Amino acid sequence: MTPDETVTAFIQALERMDMDDAMEMLAEDVTYDNVPIGAMQGRDAVRKTLDGMMGATEVDWPVARQAATGNVVMNERIDRFKLESGWLEIPVVGVFEVGDDGLISLWRDYFDLETFKNNRKALG
Amino acid sequence: MTPDETVTAFIQALERMDMDDAMEMLAEDVTYDNVPIGAMQGRDAVRKTLDGMMGATEVDWPVARQAATGNVVMNERIDRFKLESGWLEIPVVGVFEVGDDGLISLWRDYFDLETFKNNRKALG
Repeated sequence: MTPDETVTAFIQALERMDMDDAMEMLAEDVTYDNVPIGAMQGRDAVRKTLDGMMGATEVDWPVARQAATGNVVMNERIDRFKLESGWLEIPVVGVFEVGDDGLISLWRDYFDLETFKNNRKALG
Repeated sequence: MTPDETVTAFIQALERMDMDDAMEMLAEDVTYDNVPIGAMQGRDAVRKTLDGMMGATEVDWPVARQAATGNVVMNERIDRFKLESGWLEIPVVGVFEVGDDGLISLWRDYFDLETFKNNRKALG
């Protein structure tokens, strides 16, 4: 798989909420950085963070645009989480690096934290 | 020039604060969208917004990563503005589309607005 295809497969695994499959695409010491919140290190930390997916029963992360050069992939997405009270949405750009071993070593998401909080609040 | 080269040249023109040169790389009806703030339409609106560059005397937008596929280019940057009281910095990802005419038709920046405001405040 190319880095581009790896990132696409990773997003699709997250959308299926298939954490085993998704985690297999991450390097053991992956950096996962939600820019306005902060970075964490390691597959286990990522898994712990994503496992609950904020209590979503369904996850839908449509990618509007994706670009790849060398081992760098970036995608522009709307991350959507189905909560009890409705769909929570947040516009995101993800920056990924894929190692020569085919594993994602960097996943950094840029988004506006206040937009996320306001959209969460609006759902009640 | 490839779309990738066009976006690089555009950022470099902004760093020189050469607005004439920068504006020539934009489509007449360009969309310029600062995601947490909102979008504007047209080269004139962009020029008006950028002309002051927030009172900066120097601008430095180092690109850490850039990826391009087809007419889509994305770059991960730190946008730095030299103000009287010091350097104001904000981490940004830009999403660009370049038309067949070689002009930038979309420029959409993702960043955390509160980080920007806090960094501005910290400079006094």
